[in-house]
Amino acid sequence: MLTLYTAPGSCSRASHIALEESGLAFEARLVDFAQGDQRRPEFLAINPKGRVPALVTDQGVLTESPAILAYIAALAPQGLLAPVEPFALARMQAFNLYLASTVHVAHAHGRRASRWSDDAAAQASMAAKVAQNMRDCFTLIEADLARNGDSDWVMGDAYSVADPYLFTFTGWLEGDGVDVAEFPYVRAHYDRMGRRPAVVRALQAEQTRAA
Amino acid sequence: MLTLYTAPGSCSRASHIALEESGLAFEARLVDFAQGDQRRPEFLAINPKGRVPALVTDQGVLTESPAILAYIAALAPQGLLAPVEPFALARMQAFNLYLASTVHVAHAHGRRASRWSDDAAAQASMAAKVAQNMRDCFTLIEADLARNGDSDWVMGDAYSVADPYLFTFTGWLEGDGVDVAEFPYVRAHYDRMGRRPAVVRALQAEQTRAA
Ligand SMILES: N[C@@H](CCC(=O)N[C@@H](CS)C(=O)NCC(=O)O)C(=O)O
Ligand SMILES: N[C@@H](CCC(=O)N[C@@H](CS)C(=O)NCC(=O)O)C(=O)O
Repeated sequence: MLTLYTAPGSCSRASHIALEESGLAFEARLVDFAQGDQRRPEFLAINPKGRVPALVTDQGVLTESPAILAYIAALAPQGLLAPVEPFALARMQAFNLYLASTVHVAHAHGRRASRWSDDAAAQASMAAKVAQNMRDCFTLIEADLARNGDSDWVMGDAYSVADPYLFTFTGWLEGDGVDVAEFPYVRAHYDRMGRRPAVVRALQAEQTRAA
Repeated sequence: MLTLYTAPGSCSRASHIALEESGLAFEARLVDFAQGDQRRPEFLAINPKGRVPALVTDQGVLTESPAILAYIAALAPQGLLAPVEPFALARMQAFNLYLASTVHVAHAHGRRASRWSDDAAAQASMAAKVAQNMRDCFTLIEADLARNGDSDWVMGDAYSVADPYLFTFTGWLEGDGVDVAEFPYVRAHYDRMGRRPAVVRALQAEQTRAA
């Protein structure tokens, strides 16, 4: 049995969608950021980093979105959620790593700037640069998708866990002050994702649990 | 043939060591940060992100340290540089992802704070928090290693690409104002790594190319 700890709208949305796509049995549990649940001892015992996603498995706990996403793909039927060929798999991981190590970090300087400075003016100055940094990141991502031409997904014709991960970040653009219409391929990808039954189910579950 | 673009002392050191360990044929090429080589059109054609490492393969270019490290492990003899069992492999990736998305980012707020704010005072305030953030990160890492007890490596008794990646970050601590002696397991790991012939070769090659 798999238990995913998530927070609505957060990066854990990607792992939640991947589980919905996988056909694996799982339970999603809400970590309520508004109540500070991620910093309570009960949750720190699961993930000492105090972050979501965390995936509890029979073998232990896994953290870090791209690691969780690749693990879900490894448990799912071969080829359903990740390429099998080593170089293609590495390219998918490189895409996800860019999201985790650069794009996620660019976004986090908005509401989480206190991680990197205790000074209020410095935090405001970081927040003021978020839109520009997110725009720079999505300019690179748009070029990646454009290179795929008519293909529907990040890796080309085959859907993979890179798709729910990108979908999650695209959903952050508006709040970050960036108009997704600047990026036609990214926007088309977002709309295409929104029509997948697994995505609809994951978003509905977020709302139910958050209510 | 594999060509790795590296800069001495940077995060690309981990990929360089992994290639030395792998027994694969490769060439390492220097990207000179002091000359701004990473922002020249020749290099941006290889990696539009303007960062190292970048690994040029017969199938295309790979970026992002944890993706490159896992790919090198996939090309090397099975089990030499990464666990084969899916959960153990995912745990290794989670460890590497934490280094890439949190520890590397904590460190980068020292010399690369201009990524996240254009304001000099804000940059100075970020730099002032680097030691504390790195200390927090290594407190978690020390606890991970301590849990392994007498085992030599990050994943336990088996060496993996998580080891050169951690080794690279440990080497940054002094410059970040943190005394590695605060973390006995991390220090012992660093010393153990420094005695591996592949590590000695990679560090020597860095010096030769930098000279
Ligand atoms: N590197 C981690 C980052 C996880 C992360 O930062 N999660 C955020 C939500 S998007 C979180 O839990 N934040 C809560 C907090 O900072 O208190 C990953 O990729 O999974
Ligand atoms: N997420 C990337 C980060 C790569 C990165 O930031 N590399 C640094 C060296 S440690 C770099 O190339 N910096 C050059 C610059 O910022 O101009 C990875 O994990 O490989």
